[in-house]
Amino acid sequence: MGKRIVIALGGNALGKNLPEQMAAVKQTARAIADLIEEGHEVVVAHGNGPQVGMIQAAMAELTRSDPEKYIPCPLSVCVAMSQGYIGYDLQNALREELLDRGIVKGVSTVLTQVEVDPNDPAFQHPTKPIGSFMSRQEAEKMVAERGYEVVEDAGRGYRRVVASPRPVSIVEIDSIRDMVEAGLVVVACGGGGIPVFRSQGHHLKGAAAVIDKDFASCVLAQQLDADCLVILTAVEKVAVNFGRPDQQWLDSLTPTQAREYIDQGQFAPGSMLPKVQAAVQFAESKPGRSALITLLEKARDGIAGHTGTSISL
Amino acid sequence: MGKRIVIALGGNALGKNLPEQMAAVKQTARAIADLIEEGHEVVVAHGNGPQVGMIQAAMAELTRSDPEKYIPCPLSVCVAMSQGYIGYDLQNALREELLDRGIVKGVSTVLTQVEVDPNDPAFQHPTKPIGSFMSRQEAEKMVAERGYEVVEDAGRGYRRVVASPRPVSIVEIDSIRDMVEAGLVVVACGGGGIPVFRSQGHHLKGAAAVIDKDFASCVLAQQLDADCLVILTAVEKVAVNFGRPDQQWLDSLTPTQAREYIDQGQFAPGSMLPKVQAAVQFAESKPGRSALITLLEKARDGIAGHTGTSISL
Repeated sequence: MGKRIVIALGGNALGKNLPEQMAAVKQTARAIADLIEEGHEVVVAHGNGPQVGMIQAAMAELTRSDPEKYIPCPLSVCVAMSQGYIGYDLQNALREELLDRGIVKGVSTVLTQVEVDPNDPAFQHPTKPIGSFMSRQEAEKMVAERGYEVVEDAGRGYRRVVASPRPVSIVEIDSIRDMVEAGLVVVACGGGGIPVFRSQGHHLKGAAAVIDKDFASCVLAQQLDADCLVILTAVEKVAVNFGRPDQQWLDSLTPTQAREYIDQGQFAPGSMLPKVQAAVQFAESKPGRSALITLLEKARDGIAGHTGTSISL
Repeated sequence: MGKRIVIALGGNALGKNLPEQMAAVKQTARAIADLIEEGHEVVVAHGNGPQVGMIQAAMAELTRSDPEKYIPCPLSVCVAMSQGYIGYDLQNALREELLDRGIVKGVSTVLTQVEVDPNDPAFQHPTKPIGSFMSRQEAEKMVAERGYEVVEDAGRGYRRVVASPRPVSIVEIDSIRDMVEAGLVVVACGGGGIPVFRSQGHHLKGAAAVIDKDFASCVLAQQLDADCLVILTAVEKVAVNFGRPDQQWLDSLTPTQAREYIDQGQFAPGSMLPKVQAAVQFAESKPGRSALITLLEKARDGIAGHTGTSISL
């Protein structure tokens, strides 16, 4: 019996630049096709760190080359462009892999906006560095002219930092649900989604923020009433005492256990911590829901219960 | 009784840069919402000339700024990014306009690839200028290093030219059809689609080309079995003897009449000519199909038969 699965792809599933991505998506497509072949309904979400960084840097170079002609490009637009760039490669690789296996199934990328709350405390303390390094002079100019927040990265210069607020809801959720129910494989919420605020009336306004793709995938999975949230990363299982002699790989975790480990500081912020937090949030959202954290190439074995760290009530 | 309509938006529906686009899509959304409100099924395709030009220029600046780190970005990837950029603004404006009218209907942009034929004669004679102007020296370097074709534009420098082949088929057609049948408003084939060649097996390879959005919309309309192809542009009707004392606006045209006028050179290449050609191709593809060429703000009146130039058998 097939499950409805939302997959959150980590950075290693996409690589860091144009040639890496083209190679990486082939492996990624195989792992995803394995799940589709087993009869699961699959929706794919993914990160976009290096990609949106590249696009943001490119748009900044363009403005620098001709400030009269090209105004600065909002971050939300850069995220939309990154969804186009990554979605194109990913849907292509998936389409090819499925057809090679004789599976006739449409694959489509949907541009996805994700609502964030303007009162999210993250906006008070932007922490997520984006774009290329700037000199002190350039950084001061950006602060004065555009109201950017910047941080100094020891020795390497200054970088803009933006907020990473929690996702509230997926704007295109009905479209995604209809597509899944029509039997399509959907790529959605790229880069955690294009962050938007609800504004006056029905207007949505792009936010200068980036959304963690694991949290966005968690909201997507909840709103799609998925059975399983699969967070794919660079390790096969979650560990406690990671990198120490008493390191211990975990086969399963309850939300309660996970929270204890979180309180002990077992998981690195910006790395394993958000994954465990998103997994816990999904597992707790409704009885019967489970999350899995494992390696890309172990996704099938993990879903079958043979590996990875499973988080459920 | 609602019709299934494919709309091809012209450049004036989107503007030429970031602020123009944000303003233009509001007007565009109103015209499209008018048709949805009347019960038609609507799929929206659009051009991307200025937008893909901006992105291509930005990616070129990035490579120029650090050639070691950033390899040149393929044109197909730039088109994918432009679908993200334009689709984001367009779907947002449409969503807002529909909700303001109390119409609850999902709006989704689908990244769309369009197959082109590597033997298309257009590849022998690239004619479509893209990207920013280059000095002679830069142009010679691009020809030598990347095999670009370039042309000199009197006095303004050199520009890369690429082929504009005819679209053969829409790769994501099944997804688009499923979405339309699920009641969604779909934005597809942005910029004429990401041009791809069928390669070995099921592989699709990005092509260094741009596809005319009117021809792509025509193929999209045929593959969706649409009733009507609406090509929106900067004039209310097609004219013969355009700009002359004996200028004559046309209310309707048969394919035979249209071809006579085409043979007389009545329509400007790269402007009205491809629109009339695409309209004729659609009208001839199956009995009962009709095409309409008119102004954005006259779309509703045109569909109702009150204005525009209608092309049908």
